[in-house]
Amino acid sequence: MSNSVKRIGVLTSGGDAPGMNAAIRAVVLTSIHLGIDCVGIRRGYTGLISGDIVPMTAEDVNGIERCGGTILYTARSAEFQTEKGLQRAVDNCKFMDIEGLVVIGGDGSYRGALELSRHGVPVVGLPGTIDNDIGCTSYTIGFDTACNTAIDAVDKLDDTMQAHERCSVVEVMGHRAGHLALNVGIATGATVTLIPEMGVDFEADVSGRIRSARLKGQTHFTVIVAEGAASAHEVAEKIKAATGIDTRVTTLGHIQRGGSPLIRDRVTAARMGYKAVRLLADGVFNRIICMNGEKCVDYDIEEALNMTKGLDEDACLMQDALMS
Amino acid sequence: MSNSVKRIGVLTSGGDAPGMNAAIRAVVLTSIHLGIDCVGIRRGYTGLISGDIVPMTAEDVNGIERCGGTILYTARSAEFQTEKGLQRAVDNCKFMDIEGLVVIGGDGSYRGALELSRHGVPVVGLPGTIDNDIGCTSYTIGFDTACNTAIDAVDKLDDTMQAHERCSVVEVMGHRAGHLALNVGIATGATVTLIPEMGVDFEADVSGRIRSARLKGQTHFTVIVAEGAASAHEVAEKIKAATGIDTRVTTLGHIQRGGSPLIRDRVTAARMGYKAVRLLADGVFNRIICMNGEKCVDYDIEEALNMTKGLDEDACLMQDALMS
Amino acid sequence: MSNSVKRIGVLTSGGDAPGMNAAIRAVVLTSIHLGIDCVGIRRGYTGLISGDIVPMTAEDVNGIERCGGTILYTARSAEFQTEKGLQRAVDNCKFMDIEGLVVIGGDGSYRGALELSRHGVPVVGLPGTIDNDIGCTSYTIGFDTACNTAIDAVDKLDDTMQAHERCSVVEVMGHRAGHLALNVGIATGATVTLIPEMGVDFEADVSGRIRSARLKGQTHFTVIVAEGAASAHEVAEKIKAATGIDTRVTTLGHIQRGGSPLIRDRVTAARMGYKAVRLLADGVFNRIICMNGEKCVDYDIEEALNMTKGLDEDACLMQDALMS
Amino acid sequence: MSNSVKRIGVLTSGGDAPGMNAAIRAVVLTSIHLGIDCVGIRRGYTGLISGDIVPMTAEDVNGIERCGGTILYTARSAEFQTEKGLQRAVDNCKFMDIEGLVVIGGDGSYRGALELSRHGVPVVGLPGTIDNDIGCTSYTIGFDTACNTAIDAVDKLDDTMQAHERCSVVEVMGHRAGHLALNVGIATGATVTLIPEMGVDFEADVSGRIRSARLKGQTHFTVIVAEGAASAHEVAEKIKAATGIDTRVTTLGHIQRGGSPLIRDRVTAARMGYKAVRLLADGVFNRIICMNGEKCVDYDIEEALNMTKGLDEDACLMQDALMS
Repeated sequence: MSNSVKRIGVLTSGGDAPGMNAAIRAVVLTSIHLGIDCVGIRRGYTGLISGDIVPMTAEDVNGIERCGGTILYTARSAEFQTEKGLQRAVDNCKFMDIEGLVVIGGDGSYRGALELSRHGVPVVGLPGTIDNDIGCTSYTIGFDTACNTAIDAVDKLDDTMQAHERCSVVEVMGHRAGHLALNVGIATGATVTLIPEMGVDFEADVSGRIRSARLKGQTHFTVIVAEGAASAHEVAEKIKAATGIDTRVTTLGHIQRGGSPLIRDRVTAARMGYKAVRLLADGVFNRIICMNGEKCVDYDIEEALNMTKGLDEDACLMQDALMS
Repeated sequence: MSNSVKRIGVLTSGGDAPGMNAAIRAVVLTSIHLGIDCVGIRRGYTGLISGDIVPMTAEDVNGIERCGGTILYTARSAEFQTEKGLQRAVDNCKFMDIEGLVVIGGDGSYRGALELSRHGVPVVGLPGTIDNDIGCTSYTIGFDTACNTAIDAVDKLDDTMQAHERCSVVEVMGHRAGHLALNVGIATGATVTLIPEMGVDFEADVSGRIRSARLKGQTHFTVIVAEGAASAHEVAEKIKAATGIDTRVTTLGHIQRGGSPLIRDRVTAARMGYKAVRLLADGVFNRIICMNGEKCVDYDIEEALNMTKGLDEDACLMQDALMS
Repeated sequence: MSNSVKRIGVLTSGGDAPGMNAAIRAVVLTSIHLGIDCVGIRRGYTGLISGDIVPMTAEDVNGIERCGGTILYTARSAEFQTEKGLQRAVDNCKFMDIEGLVVIGGDGSYRGALELSRHGVPVVGLPGTIDNDIGCTSYTIGFDTACNTAIDAVDKLDDTMQAHERCSVVEVMGHRAGHLALNVGIATGATVTLIPEMGVDFEADVSGRIRSARLKGQTHFTVIVAEGAASAHEVAEKIKAATGIDTRVTTLGHIQRGGSPLIRDRVTAARMGYKAVRLLADGVFNRIICMNGEKCVDYDIEEALNMTKGLDEDACLMQDALMS
Repeated sequence: MSNSVKRIGVLTSGGDAPGMNAAIRAVVLTSIHLGIDCVGIRRGYTGLISGDIVPMTAEDVNGIERCGGTILYTARSAEFQTEKGLQRAVDNCKFMDIEGLVVIGGDGSYRGALELSRHGVPVVGLPGTIDNDIGCTSYTIGFDTACNTAIDAVDKLDDTMQAHERCSVVEVMGHRAGHLALNVGIATGATVTLIPEMGVDFEADVSGRIRSARLKGQTHFTVIVAEGAASAHEVAEKIKAATGIDTRVTTLGHIQRGGSPLIRDRVTAARMGYKAVRLLADGVFNRIICMNGEKCVDYDIEEALNMTKGLDEDACLMQDALMS
């Protein structure tokens, strides 16, 4: 009944996140299930401009739910920021009869989606980013896998720091948002966690806490630094200077983006991809799919872009109690 | 101001779940942080009856957030079901000046906690079970780790089933609840998922779906069976008989209970353990700590025991679209 | 200079093992590197009989070193045991100009390879089996990954057995050979390990050892049973009867075959696949590639089939000292 | 018969490696099994000088085979290089009746052991280092786990590099030895691997190979750099300049030292620890335990210190064929 929509396109945009492939798979299989043709656009908006558009079959997405990265590639497109680039993208959608476009990515990608929708391309956005920094949704695809990659690394570092009675300063991802750092800090019982949302008072937040931990009997220490909060190397230098403890820096970097997605990211991706196509099939568009706790919901794009979310307050308080 | 409470006890009860140790750690460290003495009761209510009660220090819980199982051991106690056993437990709490008791476990453990509270022992319950089958909370400590252990196993089975073009019937945990099975099925793109909440029509639900998958080009198949839904061996026999496909059964069993807890279980355990002690310190008791989406809340025990939750409906619908 | 060989075929046969794909990749890329055409035969000897032969390019094997299973599928072929089947296979090799055939599999597969070689097809065998039960080689592709999958499961079981103070009986693979069981037992500090190479005296080998472990202070126990050594369920029943300890059985089963191959299996597969093609390119054939410690060597097939290897004697003695 | 030896000491020295705990466990349990008292010396030679010596029981080592790091801590001791420090260490051994000392560490640790032996302390050395750079042994405890940690990281990086079509430059451990880098390169199909044993000709070894890989159709690239071979950042800058490819650097660092030891390291540690105590119990000392392929052997310390081993030559040749 619903299928006035003939063809749906799907693309991934911005930084990749584990679970993007599971989302692509859900979009493709749900489309097929509803009798809608599905095409993939490669390299995000870049491919929409250049017309790098490929048919997607069930076979193409077979087993990809297990794989990190994105089979559609991803990119950031400067050309898409121009009126000419945007128009090319719109024209290609029309030329290819793309009557619904699923955009998997972060805030920046939604701004692009909003532009497309203003030019008549029906879009639905899906939150895919390891940072969990999108205001409208309590959860973003990729966050859990990235967090677990980070704690696995911190646990490993903990082994060797314990053996040598050292201090470990670990830089994790998070330019503007401390969600990942905060969760990693709590999960690993870090002595200190520094996040971009809060100012850093070295004496109070770092050396004071290491002193407290030492008084509790700790002989090795972990300091989690979100990349936007401070320079891990500077923090380490200061710790060495202030405490004399042998201190080592590890920058986790891009390993946090990869890996086989864990179940939360796979299931969230499946639920969101399914819902995105259902909405488009039902003639609903210009929406962002979001998690509101355990519920999968959707908001108008503009409204969604204006939503904000804070950090869990208890999480910040807890740390004083739970550090070791 | 709050510390009229002098001593808090903590125990784990029922089946163990990954993250129980992280919860114990949070209870112990938060108590210490608030200047409250903390003791551990070993083997759940059994230890409360026999007086198997040990002091807990920061050193005792150092690093246990990484470990599966429970350092306090766990058990099911028949004696506690008797009036005499219950009274001994109550007497021991009083004798040991336990002015607040944190019970980490499932529904059955809360019934025990309710009895204790009726006899004047202030209790707070924490949901720890891999089944996620507690009505009052959207999430239980251990669920995520168990689910990921299961998908890791199913992914491995998928490798060898692909190589041999076989059908894999995998029995996962879940006597009464299909949450784990359902999530595992979605995450792995299972052809079929059987859960206790729904009747099984073999032709429609199993062989019909395998046929569909074959027509889509699949050459190997995965059937997830929650232990309460059907006999995995019977299902496998029927598949062999109906389709001729070489079919193998794997029972994941107790491996789903163990392993280093993943971040969601560690962080949920930390948040809940912290909140439990905060409540007791503030003179609030006879509560169950619950997750309501991303929020950590608490309910009266009796009220909580009467709450129910269903399966995600979309999750069931999705499966038709997303199976492979 | 060497390339009188125009086309090489590769197949996987018998039970799959992690690293088979890495071996296929090495065969294909080395062939291409040496200017030799490479084809894949699907489903082992079955595909050689039916002519299920596909061209292999660098793109086909891109990234497969990370994947369990075998992209060429595997099977056991009854038809190949017949003179007619064998002749069809030989004819197909000739028809397809396959001037060298790489057979990845176990002892049974080599017998097939020997038959082919007697009919004029130049073959080289590669040991791929998780059992490490091939007499001519100290190591077989897949053994390390399978062993690690098993200890990961036993470690997980250990968590929950510790929590409940239970005994865990774990059935691991090994119909005729105890290598995997023995290594798993040593690595996990198992109380008991039963292997097919030795008779089982229940009182001396099982209950006596559990008694000793209890006297050393152990409260939970692990019994590793190779599938060919005894029935895990019978062993568990006897333990319960003799000791009263709550005893649980886990059958690891096919999960031991799957999973992303670990480095030892990937590197061994790469070395062996490379060497196999080098030999064929140099006009050397009817050989089995073997590891002799760290060295990659090759033996005549017939000679190799007559070689045997025993268990590490120290490993057996060690267990008395190292059990816990 | 053998037990003229009353007490054995065990220490870990130099950089920690996964499996050191499994070796400690084997030393302690074998001692107990043979009726020999066992003590642990903490922080390597530092603790031998300061008398930081603790009794070791079966309970102390229960379950530590699963844990990274070393429960005995490790350190490098400048004082031990002095005659006075050495004498203090010797005196402490005599004062504590340590009639045999097991030293777990690398080459540097053996030099210390040799000095002790010259002063009358019977010693046996065990190779524990992630670098596999000890001439007398084909394998060192910790190498396999470190290699697998590295390929797991490279596999994760590969996901995101594929998604963005980037080049990944990964610095792995190895100041003087390329064993780890070489194995990681082969296992992950790296485009380039740079090791300290070979000079680096950027045009031939790096940009030339990336060009070849591109011509084969590759769109993302991995360059493995052992820390002693070149500066990863300089290599990345040059790649960007020469090819224009978006290139990212990841320094794996200390995560390569930690983590639960995999089976090869646990079993090798068990075999070596067992053999070390057996030798001491039999009155044999001043030996290094080594692996010679699959065989566990022992050499005189001085002789062992003069042994060298090279890289696998085929491994270097293979890379041209197997890169992707």
